[in-house]
Amino acid sequence: MRVVVVGGTGTIGSAVVAALTGRHEVVVVGRNRGAVQVDLASPDSIRAMFQSVGKLDAVVSAAGQAKFGSLDELTDADYVFSFSNKMMGQVNLVRIGRQFIADGGSFTLTSGVLSHEPMKGSASISMVNAGLEGFVRAAALELPREMRVNIVSPPWVTETLVARKMDTAHGMPAASVALAYLASVEGTMTGQTLDPRMLVGR
Amino acid sequence: MRVVVVGGTGTIGSAVVAALTGRHEVVVVGRNRGAVQVDLASPDSIRAMFQSVGKLDAVVSAAGQAKFGSLDELTDADYVFSFSNKMMGQVNLVRIGRQFIADGGSFTLTSGVLSHEPMKGSASISMVNAGLEGFVRAAALELPREMRVNIVSPPWVTETLVARKMDTAHGMPAASVALAYLASVEGTMTGQTLDPRMLVGR
Repeated sequence: MRVVVVGGTGTIGSAVVAALTGRHEVVVVGRNRGAVQVDLASPDSIRAMFQSVGKLDAVVSAAGQAKFGSLDELTDADYVFSFSNKMMGQVNLVRIGRQFIADGGSFTLTSGVLSHEPMKGSASISMVNAGLEGFVRAAALELPREMRVNIVSPPWVTETLVARKMDTAHGMPAASVALAYLASVEGTMTGQTLDPRMLVGR
Repeated sequence: MRVVVVGGTGTIGSAVVAALTGRHEVVVVGRNRGAVQVDLASPDSIRAMFQSVGKLDAVVSAAGQAKFGSLDELTDADYVFSFSNKMMGQVNLVRIGRQFIADGGSFTLTSGVLSHEPMKGSASISMVNAGLEGFVRAAALELPREMRVNIVSPPWVTETLVARKMDTAHGMPAASVALAYLASVEGTMTGQTLDPRMLVGR
């Protein structure tokens, strides 16, 4: 398969690229780096990315930004940013990408553990992550040409916790998280939210 | 308690008003009708509503619009509309309302069955409903002064199905749905998504 990994230069994305490499042809897309660049907040930029990439069988997104902050700190603009970037950016990868992807192609998006295991400060992120999971459940019902769409809800990644000098007790290495993306790309499921913690021991 | 019911003139809202009446003092807020009017898509309008309402102990929202349509039909503007209205409108009831509500006050929002039981055409609605549930889970963790926030996920309402000449087999009367809102207002739970179908037989 020819697989486009949006956010393929990030912590999780680069682990997904590593997991796919050798099994598939991988195109790395980043915000500023990678073989192709994209601004997820811009539908025009997403369209240009797909035109540039050409033929493809699967899209993985490990990209999208959302604002962390307390209810007191988060502004109207912060909610709009989270909506436009992590949420609509990934929704638009599906909306626009389905015109470019091969029959039977798949989309694998990213939400995150804060969807169902929130913490103080995660209001806008929890909203966006859960919203994406809702979108995926619904969109899977009407994608044409045997296309599929799933979403991975990663736990905290060990590499991120180390970089932020946080407790790594509940972290999972990015290489293990990446296996959930591989399962979505190579499997037959659709409309599912995949928790990499459920795949440990594979 | 003094309870503000936003969308209190709608099918579910008026049933909530009926269930609360006699047990609490109810202020009915509508888009065009009711004792006070509000445009959920406007933070300024929400702030003016709370200023007009005065002292309050609970806010119930059975309001907010989101666009139904297939992946082909839904436009960028439709997603923005659903985000600004049903999602941010209700998020803003909490963000702005917490400055006006009494100690121990509660917020009860509305999502909908399409969050977890999608159908063709529900992509934007499923996204918004699920996103609201994520927001509620997170916001509950940091509301001050013993405040609470929950969300009711109503099934299809019989009255709506009858009005649309649809099959009523899976409908629930609005009066039964209203009991979930009553449970949220009068109970002690917070951060929960309430499915009225789980309350049948109460």
